[in-house]
Amino acid sequence: MTEEIESLDKILEKYIPAEELKSVQRLLYGCSPRKVLLDPSVEAQAQETNFELASYEFFAQKEDLRAPRHVRVGLVQNQIVQPTTSPVESQRSALFKRIGDAIDVAGKAGANIVCLQEAWTMPFAFCTRERLPWTEFAESAEDGASTKFLSNYAKKYGMVIVSPILERDESHGDVLWNTAVIISHTGGVIGKTRKNHVPRVGDFNESTYYMEGNTGHRVFDTKFGKIAVNICYGRHHPQNWMMYGLNGAEIVFNPSATLGALSEPFWPIEARNAAMANSYFACAINRVGTEMYPNAFTSGDGKEAHNDMGHFYGSSYVAGPDGSRTPGLSRLRDGILLSDLDLNLCRQVKDKWGFRMTQRSDLYAQGLKEASSLEFQPQIVKDESL
Amino acid sequence: MTEEIESLDKILEKYIPAEELKSVQRLLYGCSPRKVLLDPSVEAQAQETNFELASYEFFAQKEDLRAPRHVRVGLVQNQIVQPTTSPVESQRSALFKRIGDAIDVAGKAGANIVCLQEAWTMPFAFCTRERLPWTEFAESAEDGASTKFLSNYAKKYGMVIVSPILERDESHGDVLWNTAVIISHTGGVIGKTRKNHVPRVGDFNESTYYMEGNTGHRVFDTKFGKIAVNICYGRHHPQNWMMYGLNGAEIVFNPSATLGALSEPFWPIEARNAAMANSYFACAINRVGTEMYPNAFTSGDGKEAHNDMGHFYGSSYVAGPDGSRTPGLSRLRDGILLSDLDLNLCRQVKDKWGFRMTQRSDLYAQGLKEASSLEFQPQIVKDESL
Repeated sequence: MTEEIESLDKILEKYIPAEELKSVQRLLYGCSPRKVLLDPSVEAQAQETNFELASYEFFAQKEDLRAPRHVRVGLVQNQIVQPTTSPVESQRSALFKRIGDAIDVAGKAGANIVCLQEAWTMPFAFCTRERLPWTEFAESAEDGASTKFLSNYAKKYGMVIVSPILERDESHGDVLWNTAVIISHTGGVIGKTRKNHVPRVGDFNESTYYMEGNTGHRVFDTKFGKIAVNICYGRHHPQNWMMYGLNGAEIVFNPSATLGALSEPFWPIEARNAAMANSYFACAINRVGTEMYPNAFTSGDGKEAHNDMGHFYGSSYVAGPDGSRTPGLSRLRDGILLSDLDLNLCRQVKDKWGFRMTQRSDLYAQGLKEASSLEFQPQIVKDESL
Repeated sequence: MTEEIESLDKILEKYIPAEELKSVQRLLYGCSPRKVLLDPSVEAQAQETNFELASYEFFAQKEDLRAPRHVRVGLVQNQIVQPTTSPVESQRSALFKRIGDAIDVAGKAGANIVCLQEAWTMPFAFCTRERLPWTEFAESAEDGASTKFLSNYAKKYGMVIVSPILERDESHGDVLWNTAVIISHTGGVIGKTRKNHVPRVGDFNESTYYMEGNTGHRVFDTKFGKIAVNICYGRHHPQNWMMYGLNGAEIVFNPSATLGALSEPFWPIEARNAAMANSYFACAINRVGTEMYPNAFTSGDGKEAHNDMGHFYGSSYVAGPDGSRTPGLSRLRDGILLSDLDLNLCRQVKDKWGFRMTQRSDLYAQGLKEASSLEFQPQIVKDESL
């Protein structure tokens, strides 16, 4: 039944009177949503192609020496287009067409950086534990079909595109990775970064397909700021978010695929906590819809075999370093979330809260070293009266 | 104006119809509040002494080998009782009386562990940067007035008490610390633990009074489970929460003193994120009210001198490892929040989500070591076209 809810924000707006809604939004989001007006032609194009389109802004203070560093970021969440029983090429082409439409909207709206959802080129088929045909969606990060496809869009709109795909690494024994490709505004590939933490929870059987990433915590210095990508389950690990921050990220994208029954109470918390703790912008993207697979599978929960994982609840949002965030996109519909960031806010918040200055990295380097040793003895003080 | 709001929860309950409220609560809190009925005599006693009293429970699955490990935790939030201009002994006695009343309610309700707010024996006078008379509130952790006072209550009710105070360490040159004392259910002192991260934000001028804690991330093995204390500003540092988890904590208390205008959007996020990320219960406690000081002070924000820090917004809550949480106590009133935990939930969630298994501590030990080196070079990939 909860699947039918459009979004938390819509319920709040429907019932709570304006004055008290402001207080609720301040408590929940740090501020009332600061909407940005877009050109009506862009709105019309989103409507024609059936994308929800939302647009918000974050503010920084004016500085004397630095000009504002405005960046318009676009997040795309979407359902798969064709049934999972269609031929691979057909499924993929349909997704390319759909994402092309989304990028056209974002591009015309002046987006500087667009990030797509995790494994956007395919259904999230890892629940099945089957190999073919799903692994056929894997491709080279550097010159696979999706990279070539997006490269044209990046050049056309002069935008950076973050493209999370299933990677086939032919130069290392054909292994698979869960990878994000960073495409320059010029159309070239700046580099790639891999998912550092791989889930073993529920139907997220990804650990049988690919391993924990070996690319560290790279930050990509693009025309529009320093960006990083924390893929999906990596958002549960604060230390992962932290390392992107230590490497200088100003925006960290979290392309995801996650389910209502499993993770929805976690969703508004984790990326936002990361934005606060690390004084950067965090952009959380989740896919939408329910994907049906031809062969029924069980979920390790004693229940009967079934053909779907459950409902991907969308709800993509952007969180700022100052504790504010945007409302989420729909839980049900394809959508594009545009956010205007002033990257100067990151350093301003660092100076205000001092989290980097007070974080005592050396203490934790030592603590984690001990904790990861086989001889680790937890620091326990016993009640001697027991 | 927002100061006048009683709580977010009260607004939601007032306006949103029951069926949709359930959905809102599931999205915000992981579940509808699971209230626990208390004995009417306890309710009456809370009312007589003017404490809001709320009580909730968390569930774990039944196990074959382990019996449930039920613990009733009590959090106390309160205003100071007397004006800050009263004699120190008088202010302190009034607070002792008030806290005695709170513990009587919690004790009669069967609480096993009670945690008080940060520096509960005094006004939060560090905003003034004045020494006397405020530093007179400091005392020995082992045998100071408040420890002796609480020891009797601990023994009387057979409860563990966590007592956050301003510590005077006579054996190390009379220095001050921000410290929590852990008092056994027998009345003895199990040990103490100090605030690891000290703020330099707004009027939180604590860094001029005491230094970063030197007690590491101790976990106290009490009759009612393994507990730790992350004091106030330490909640902004996920790595601090993490180390308590690695040392085996099942409940981490976060006694705080924080202000609406500064931190309120952070409040519901940080302790809850910690509970999720570390598979333990996190208990966030904030003081209540506005404290007036005799001498006006400025706040480093260009505004005029004034006599108060702002509004401490209470809103104490408990978050579970499964993503659920209780509603918050009032933003305005003294209150006692009781929560029934089954500590078996911690290991059950660890087995479900696998965050400890997948956390790659060795990778982060190395990463933090490098990041804290003077020679650190962030891992940056440049767009060569720039």
